[in-house]
Amino acid sequence: MSAWWQHPAQPVDRGRLAQALAREAQLTKPAGSLGRLEQIAATLASLQRRAAPRLERIWISIFAADHGIATEGVSAFPQEVTGQMLANFARGGAAISVLARHLNAPLELVDLGLAHAVAPLPGVRHLGIAAGTESFLHGAAMTAAQCDAALSAGQEAVQRAVEDGAELFIGGEMGIGNTSSACALSALLLDQPVSELVGLGTGLTALGLRHKTRVIERVVAHHRPHANDALETLRRVGGLEVAALAGAYIAAAQKGLPVLVDGYISTAAALCAVRMNADVHSWLFYSHRGAEPGHRLLLQALDAEPLLALDLRLGEASGAALAVPLLQAACRLHNEMATFAEAAVSGSFK
Amino acid sequence: MSAWWQHPAQPVDRGRLAQALAREAQLTKPAGSLGRLEQIAATLASLQRRAAPRLERIWISIFAADHGIATEGVSAFPQEVTGQMLANFARGGAAISVLARHLNAPLELVDLGLAHAVAPLPGVRHLGIAAGTESFLHGAAMTAAQCDAALSAGQEAVQRAVEDGAELFIGGEMGIGNTSSACALSALLLDQPVSELVGLGTGLTALGLRHKTRVIERVVAHHRPHANDALETLRRVGGLEVAALAGAYIAAAQKGLPVLVDGYISTAAALCAVRMNADVHSWLFYSHRGAEPGHRLLLQALDAEPLLALDLRLGEASGAALAVPLLQAACRLHNEMATFAEAAVSGSFK
Repeated sequence: MSAWWQHPAQPVDRGRLAQALAREAQLTKPAGSLGRLEQIAATLASLQRRAAPRLERIWISIFAADHGIATEGVSAFPQEVTGQMLANFARGGAAISVLARHLNAPLELVDLGLAHAVAPLPGVRHLGIAAGTESFLHGAAMTAAQCDAALSAGQEAVQRAVEDGAELFIGGEMGIGNTSSACALSALLLDQPVSELVGLGTGLTALGLRHKTRVIERVVAHHRPHANDALETLRRVGGLEVAALAGAYIAAAQKGLPVLVDGYISTAAALCAVRMNADVHSWLFYSHRGAEPGHRLLLQALDAEPLLALDLRLGEASGAALAVPLLQAACRLHNEMATFAEAAVSGSFK
Repeated sequence: MSAWWQHPAQPVDRGRLAQALAREAQLTKPAGSLGRLEQIAATLASLQRRAAPRLERIWISIFAADHGIATEGVSAFPQEVTGQMLANFARGGAAISVLARHLNAPLELVDLGLAHAVAPLPGVRHLGIAAGTESFLHGAAMTAAQCDAALSAGQEAVQRAVEDGAELFIGGEMGIGNTSSACALSALLLDQPVSELVGLGTGLTALGLRHKTRVIERVVAHHRPHANDALETLRRVGGLEVAALAGAYIAAAQKGLPVLVDGYISTAAALCAVRMNADVHSWLFYSHRGAEPGHRLLLQALDAEPLLALDLRLGEASGAALAVPLLQAACRLHNEMATFAEAAVSGSFK
C-alpha cells in the first residue's frame, strides 16, 4: 500500500483553461496586455474547475521548529528566538500578523518542536514532535517517525484550511538555522556545489558565511549517497517545519487547493514535495524571488516565475501574503471586466 | 513672474526619514529583511511628514485624448477606440474600473479632446481642449494655449484629489497612438535612437513596427532642435493626456501628495515633469517595468525602481492600481509591527 503522499493530486481541468484563455482574449484590452495575470487567472480557473476563479478566502499556517544544526554556529541568532517569535506571531506583532490581518486571513500557528520549550501560547498548536531536530552534521535530522509526524502535521493543516473554506493555502516557517537546512536540501537535490547556493541568511558576516559554507559542505558530503531519494534527504537534512510544509503542499494538491509558496525555505520544501509527488507541480504558485542565491536556483529547477522581486528575506509567509493581492486582482479582472461585445468597443481593438 | 509649474514642491522631511529608518531597525525582523518595503515606508513618512505613513485613500484620474499621429498608421487600432474605452471606463467594464472598485478608490475620468467627439458620458469631465492633437510628423501636436490648458487640467485633478482627502495620486491615460508620442518624447529628451526605444505598442505586427520606427525617426529629426526644452518638446510631440499627467505630477509635488506612476506613457510624462521642475523627482513612486523598450530607458533615466515586472502593457493606470497594495503593506508593516522591546525578542536578533 502506498504512503498518503504518493496518492494522486486532483486533476487539472484543461477545458476550463482553454475557456478561460478564450475569455481573456475577449476582454476590453489589447490581447495579452495584462501580462502574466492573464495566464494566472486561466490557470486558477483550471485548478478550481470553475469559470470564475476566486481567491477571497486565504488560509495561512505558520510552522515553527528548531534545528540542531544551529548549535554549529551557522546562524546569527540564538535558538530562543524561534519561540520568542512564535509568541510574537500569537500576539499579533510580527510582519505576518499584520499582513494576515489586512488580508482577513486566519493565521494558524503550529509549534512542531522547539529546542527550548515555551509555555503553552494561546492559539498555538504545540505538537512537540521533538525538541528540535538533531544536528545533521554527522547524523540525520529526524527519525522516520518524526519526519512522518511532521509531514502529517502539514496534511492536517490543509484539512483545517479546507474545512474553513479556503481558496488558497499559504504555508510559512520560523526556525533559527533553517536557511542551512534549505541550503543542504538544495545542494543535495539539485546536485549543486554549496558555494553556489549559500547565502547570508538573516544576517551573517562574511566570516560567518565562510564557516556556514564549510559546515554545509561537510553535511552534503556525509548525506550525498541518499540524494536520489527526496523523502530520505528531507529526513536527513530537512527540518520539522520543512517537512510540514512539504506535507501541506502535497495534501493541498490532493485536496484541490491551490498553494502560494513563500520564500527560500518554503521553496526548498516545494522541491521536496514535487520530488515526492510530481503531481504537486501544477498546484504551486510562487510569490517572490528572494536575495539568497539558493532560492534562485530552486525556482529555476521548479520552472517557477515568482510574482515579486523586492529583496525580501524574512520568511514566515510574508512574501506570499504580499503577493496575494496580485492573484486576487488577476481573478477579479478575469471575472468582472466587460467583453468587446458587451462594451461595444471596435472589434479591431483586440 | 514664473509659471505655476516652476513653483517649488513641498519640502521633504529628512528628520522623519531618519526616524522612520530607525524604527524599521527596531521592528521584530532581521534588519533589512523586508527589502525595498522598508525604504518605501520611510520615504512615505518623510513625504507625508508623519511618523505613521498611510495610503488608505487613493485617487485615480484617467486622462483621455486623441493623437493626430494616429492617422499616420502607427497604431493597430482606430481612433474611435479612445472614446469607446472612455465609455467602458464610465460603465465600470475596463480593467481600471475593476481595480479601482476593489481599492475603494474614486475613479475620475477626464476627456481632454477626442478626434471623434462622443455624446456626454455620465461622470466624465469633457474639456474639449482640441479635437485631439495635430500630427507631429511635420508640425507641433499642440498650440501653447492647448498645452497650457492640458497642464492645468492635470493641476485641477490634483486639487480635487486633495479636497477628497487623497493620500496617493494615480494618473492614467487612454489615447490611441500614445506610445508613438511617448517614444518621440523619450528619443528627444533622452537623446537616444528611436530604434532602441520603439515597441509593439498594443499590438503591431513586425511590418507595422518598421513603419512606426520610420515615422518616429522623421518626427525626431524634425523636432530635435528644441529637445533641450522639455516644455517645448512636450508641446511638439506630446499629447493632451501626456501634458495633463505631467501637470498633475508637478501639482501633486507642490501640494505634498505622493504619486504612483503607471506605465510607459505615464513615465514619459514623469520625465517631462521632472525636467520642467526637478523638485518633482522626490514625490514619484513607480509601479511597474513594462514590455516596451522605451519604458526601461525612461525608468533608468529617472533612477526609478518599479515595484512590479509582470509584462503589463495596458496603461489606463492599471499597473499603478496593481502596485497599490504593496505600498499600503509597507505602511501597515511599519506602523503595526511590534518592536524587539515590545515583543521581548532577544536583542541579538537584529
